[in-house]
Amino acid sequence: MKLDSNKLDFGKLNGLITAVIQDHASGRVLMVGFMNEEAFRLTEETGYATFFSRSRNKLWLKGESSGHKLVVKNIATDCDFDALLIQVEALGPGVCHEGYQSCFFRQLDAGEWKESESRIFDPAAVYGNRT
Amino acid sequence: MKLDSNKLDFGKLNGLITAVIQDHASGRVLMVGFMNEEAFRLTEETGYATFFSRSRNKLWLKGESSGHKLVVKNIATDCDFDALLIQVEALGPGVCHEGYQSCFFRQLDAGEWKESESRIFDPAAVYGNRT
Repeated sequence: MKLDSNKLDFGKLNGLITAVIQDHASGRVLMVGFMNEEAFRLTEETGYATFFSRSRNKLWLKGESSGHKLVVKNIATDCDFDALLIQVEALGPGVCHEGYQSCFFRQLDAGEWKESESRIFDPAAVYGNRT
Repeated sequence: MKLDSNKLDFGKLNGLITAVIQDHASGRVLMVGFMNEEAFRLTEETGYATFFSRSRNKLWLKGESSGHKLVVKNIATDCDFDALLIQVEALGPGVCHEGYQSCFFRQLDAGEWKESESRIFDPAAVYGNRT
């Protein structure tokens, strides 16, 4: 029984809260997702980050198909209880479904978004036709 | 003229995009805010992080009253162009209006949110009656 989780403010974003995923060892920000109350509860209880997919409109256990799960090491919230910072150990070579270590693989450079790192795995091999 | 900024997807969140603010030197995640197109443009052009305040429903130059501005060092976006990771040098002792270095000063500990760091400045002295 988690007594205090209900302090989180899911009301500002139609039942969702922003979840920033950070590598617990390197500090690298890997992705940003959204959780509803159920996704947060599952994340807490299972120890694997679970999101609510806005595009698929359902719960999404990250890594369910790829095996690239996110093992929760620490969960923090902010002053307004409306965002989460979740430090994880990311299983597999990278979290991004496009084949990068981090989803933040594009940097703004003189007004243009440019890839700032190389693809490290073949998304077709990992995800098949699912993108 | 910034040619490519319009690739950002402001459509999923009613004109807003999530912006994760990370200390460029330590890697610490300091806060999460939201930007509309105008806030993003100002952030790019001025080099200081500017948000759209959902509670005040207006643009918000972080540090305008406190002096605790966020000097932009790098801007990245994610695979879906619907989140920003902005690495900054944070002026002043901390970014949080409650007096902490980071807004993420509470960690989940056995089901309860507990302060995981000490307050480092007096918010009343910095922000006056504004909280």
